[in-house]
Amino acid sequence: MTRKLGIIGMGHVGQAVAQQIITNGYADDLVLIDKNKSKVGADALDFEDAMPNLTSHTNIVVNDYAELKDADIIISALGKIKLSDNPNNDRFAELPHNRTEVKKVAQKIKESGFNGILIAITNPVDVITSLYQQITGLPKEHVIGTGTLLDSARMQRAVGKGLNIDPRSVTGYNLGEHGNSQFTAWSTVRVLDQPIQELAQQRGLDLDQINEDARMGGRYVIVGKHYTNYGVAAAGVRLASVILNDAREVLPVSNFREEYGTYLSYPAVVGRDGIVEQLQLKLTDEELYKLRQSAHFIMEKIEEAD
Amino acid sequence: MTRKLGIIGMGHVGQAVAQQIITNGYADDLVLIDKNKSKVGADALDFEDAMPNLTSHTNIVVNDYAELKDADIIISALGKIKLSDNPNNDRFAELPHNRTEVKKVAQKIKESGFNGILIAITNPVDVITSLYQQITGLPKEHVIGTGTLLDSARMQRAVGKGLNIDPRSVTGYNLGEHGNSQFTAWSTVRVLDQPIQELAQQRGLDLDQINEDARMGGRYVIVGKHYTNYGVAAAGVRLASVILNDAREVLPVSNFREEYGTYLSYPAVVGRDGIVEQLQLKLTDEELYKLRQSAHFIMEKIEEAD
Amino acid sequence: MTRKLGIIGMGHVGQAVAQQIITNGYADDLVLIDKNKSKVGADALDFEDAMPNLTSHTNIVVNDYAELKDADIIISALGKIKLSDNPNNDRFAELPHNRTEVKKVAQKIKESGFNGILIAITNPVDVITSLYQQITGLPKEHVIGTGTLLDSARMQRAVGKGLNIDPRSVTGYNLGEHGNSQFTAWSTVRVLDQPIQELAQQRGLDLDQINEDARMGGRYVIVGKHYTNYGVAAAGVRLASVILNDAREVLPVSNFREEYGTYLSYPAVVGRDGIVEQLQLKLTDEELYKLRQSAHFIMEKIEEAD
Amino acid sequence: MTRKLGIIGMGHVGQAVAQQIITNGYADDLVLIDKNKSKVGADALDFEDAMPNLTSHTNIVVNDYAELKDADIIISALGKIKLSDNPNNDRFAELPHNRTEVKKVAQKIKESGFNGILIAITNPVDVITSLYQQITGLPKEHVIGTGTLLDSARMQRAVGKGLNIDPRSVTGYNLGEHGNSQFTAWSTVRVLDQPIQELAQQRGLDLDQINEDARMGGRYVIVGKHYTNYGVAAAGVRLASVILNDAREVLPVSNFREEYGTYLSYPAVVGRDGIVEQLQLKLTDEELYKLRQSAHFIMEKIEEAD
Repeated sequence: MTRKLGIIGMGHVGQAVAQQIITNGYADDLVLIDKNKSKVGADALDFEDAMPNLTSHTNIVVNDYAELKDADIIISALGKIKLSDNPNNDRFAELPHNRTEVKKVAQKIKESGFNGILIAITNPVDVITSLYQQITGLPKEHVIGTGTLLDSARMQRAVGKGLNIDPRSVTGYNLGEHGNSQFTAWSTVRVLDQPIQELAQQRGLDLDQINEDARMGGRYVIVGKHYTNYGVAAAGVRLASVILNDAREVLPVSNFREEYGTYLSYPAVVGRDGIVEQLQLKLTDEELYKLRQSAHFIMEKIEEAD
Repeated sequence: MTRKLGIIGMGHVGQAVAQQIITNGYADDLVLIDKNKSKVGADALDFEDAMPNLTSHTNIVVNDYAELKDADIIISALGKIKLSDNPNNDRFAELPHNRTEVKKVAQKIKESGFNGILIAITNPVDVITSLYQQITGLPKEHVIGTGTLLDSARMQRAVGKGLNIDPRSVTGYNLGEHGNSQFTAWSTVRVLDQPIQELAQQRGLDLDQINEDARMGGRYVIVGKHYTNYGVAAAGVRLASVILNDAREVLPVSNFREEYGTYLSYPAVVGRDGIVEQLQLKLTDEELYKLRQSAHFIMEKIEEAD
Repeated sequence: MTRKLGIIGMGHVGQAVAQQIITNGYADDLVLIDKNKSKVGADALDFEDAMPNLTSHTNIVVNDYAELKDADIIISALGKIKLSDNPNNDRFAELPHNRTEVKKVAQKIKESGFNGILIAITNPVDVITSLYQQITGLPKEHVIGTGTLLDSARMQRAVGKGLNIDPRSVTGYNLGEHGNSQFTAWSTVRVLDQPIQELAQQRGLDLDQINEDARMGGRYVIVGKHYTNYGVAAAGVRLASVILNDAREVLPVSNFREEYGTYLSYPAVVGRDGIVEQLQLKLTDEELYKLRQSAHFIMEKIEEAD
Repeated sequence: MTRKLGIIGMGHVGQAVAQQIITNGYADDLVLIDKNKSKVGADALDFEDAMPNLTSHTNIVVNDYAELKDADIIISALGKIKLSDNPNNDRFAELPHNRTEVKKVAQKIKESGFNGILIAITNPVDVITSLYQQITGLPKEHVIGTGTLLDSARMQRAVGKGLNIDPRSVTGYNLGEHGNSQFTAWSTVRVLDQPIQELAQQRGLDLDQINEDARMGGRYVIVGKHYTNYGVAAAGVRLASVILNDAREVLPVSNFREEYGTYLSYPAVVGRDGIVEQLQLKLTDEELYKLRQSAHFIMEKIEEAD
């Protein structure tokens, strides 16, 4: 009854997710969890100081795993990013820390009796999503990573800027690992009712540059502010909304693909029951090769993570 | 034409203001300004990476004062807070730094030809609001500080918690300086259709404790996360919305009161023309005394700031 | 899980409630019920034709009482208003028709196993709310009429216009029957931090005129368009939001008051558990007299309705 | 400064447009115009009775053409539909009445000095949009009809239902006249990253049936409730939002195409400057033939309308 969401990890990303949810009135109950008790308590109080000036009310509960039992959705936003530790914007630099934390968190989620949809934002997201699924024992289609929903947005933003149109009028997907082995599947990208490859030639768009921009898009943001949060928070909140509404939108998110034997980003129809249909793209041979490479890379990392 | 807002200063507060505005679709055009070019550029790009997953579009312009010429509202969120420099949560510890910055910024705003409403969040807000008015030469009723709109919200939150009701169902005001000399004017506070002083006795509410909680409310947040932002951002965004809508709501904000010779927080009717009517509260003698003390304190600081 | 609402009766009011809920994304699942199958089917299809151009998705189910079993809230908006049958805007002119319908509907709601909160908009609302409670057997605090939440809004609008301020900055209540025996309890109305009676004298406000305007406010609307809907729809949707959010706002709604032995409008704290606290106003003797008269009138009508 | 919109014609469509705008807080100032003074006055008052229970404020002005001078957008929703006069759902049955009205209204808009974007919903929309442009003398790219934005939505809805996915995940366009000569350009429709024609075969979708459903989609709604409004209102409000935000989305709307010598629906990039880029679709020969037929039909009707 009513919408109940949980956010685990109140760093820059968890905070941005929480602010977007609270100020838009997307949740009725919100459970905020963070290892740093005084930090998460401070955020909760700060949000409560906002509420008299907001248009809707959200009940906030802090650091109580038992409250997750009847949550609709949990969003894992925990993670540690330090620029100094990670000069190449390699999301795997976070793995040792995040793996340890996620194992603990996933166990507590399991013990809470949670039976909803788990959304992972925590990096390296494909590995972490896999870990969450294994430990919680939730059905594979109920554990989803934001994956390349962010990278696809970056590609849409870059293409949109290049053509001076709304990025929402750009369709298509970045696939594979939400990491350095990902790629824009240009064969899926259409804009102005044309395949982008035709249009790019006419209009002098440099697709390699855009691909690089999307793939490394976070780097410019990280250089400027030492972390990224708004882009990925919007991806996570959109994914949560689609699940709550049972909207059944097609979104490129990290989901388990049998034929690749792993979680990786590939478009799927998303609804209240999580991943409700997996698309079958008609990729080029080169794209298929890249995707297999990306899958292989993720699987290696998952093995290391165990 | 259409809604154009500017935010100056993209620290924790400016970021929270921007995220609330962008994710709620409150502005059509948004000008973000910060001394740290790579930081504000990174935030703008991060917001643009969010937009393909948001429900509305906002045009973002970075670091261009000329764009403020036809803005409806500018929100000053600049400021420097370091807990280590400010162990007592004294907002005046920021004055030397912020005064210098605000003088430069106000001059640039003036030169832009800006002719809208200026909202100051920057602390110490009553002094800074005064400075902005003096330097920009805008009419006094067009320069407004968020003032005790935040502190009143904290009081509403504390009273609401004590009585287990929505803080929006608590009416009344904190007055004076948005700082340590402020106070809850309990004679103005009503809840459950009763003066709170009567109710407090019946229900065992400790008003002194609540007053202290509201007055020092930020401290707990600051201890936990080293800054406050969501509460004051929501106050600033609400104030901006009321101005855009020409809603004419009564809000306790920092406005210039002739009888006290200074900016201080006192409820006023706020609309598209800024402060459109000033209330005349029937305060107790003790409250009037506190208000005069607070006004006196602000005036001293304004003189120091020149 | 997620927000599920039902609307019974898709006349002007039910349509306006549905449009506000759908275009604002307040519900995940929406059950629309109307005796006129082709009419409610047409509305549902029309809303589905809107969805590709809306920012959120709502699942609509038509005319299936079984779907109400796990709904959070049901809103009864059924009713028949014909100006020609009702020249004096007497809400009791609708009673014979609505009573018969409500008895059938309430029985079907009971049979569905519905266990949430029932909001009645159907007129005469105090009588109808009572009927719904009796037949469904739901706890009295789970059956609520919109009552004078609309009339209070009309009073706020009229006072706000008279003083050129936002109606949301006017506090106070209309009490009693949502009908001709209601009245504005002026002793509860405050504006600009003053009792309105003092202010009215200073500013030449005619409170009798405003009382009449609020009490008969619907008449001008009915004369112009033969029905009223937006005002009461907004009251119903706000009430639903407060319940979903568990906001615990104080609202003047029709709730069962033991001391009057009947449903009538009197402010209460409203949350997820319905009426969670009843206020005790300090009314004047005249107001108490009017309230008792209004209660007496409602009770008579309830007896007639059985 | 701030968002100012006008709606002309407060029948079912104008009302639905107004309710969506007001309850979502999309406008700061709203000018409502209707020949029936008591009707439009009643709607305005009813909306004002809603506002104390809404989360944002909208200033409403009634029947004052002079107020349109500085409006950002005017939405023409006037029109007369009577099922009894129009058994075949032929939008041209409305032409004689609407043409006369539009000529008067367009003249008054011109005299107001309005210099913004004019959106026509009034049917037959392609002819009416043309009339508005001719009489107001506004640039062709500043006068836009909602056209097949509604019909495309109907196609998306029908395809989405057939495949059990969100209609927003269906891309593609209905083209030509917003009337019986329109058609779904199936070559533009893609879903699940495939051309729909391939998918339709695999999944047993009957595209002819869907085309008929979209083309005649309004009929089922009209049979059920004697008019359609929510679908077209959402199309109009989305178009207005895209213009206000300067979002530059690609939308199938009625715009003047030189090569066809007339207004007709064809996708275009829409922003604050109206039609900012016209797409060039790669239609099949059959589609091109249908489009020329549709254009020819519209041109004939425009000549008749003069």
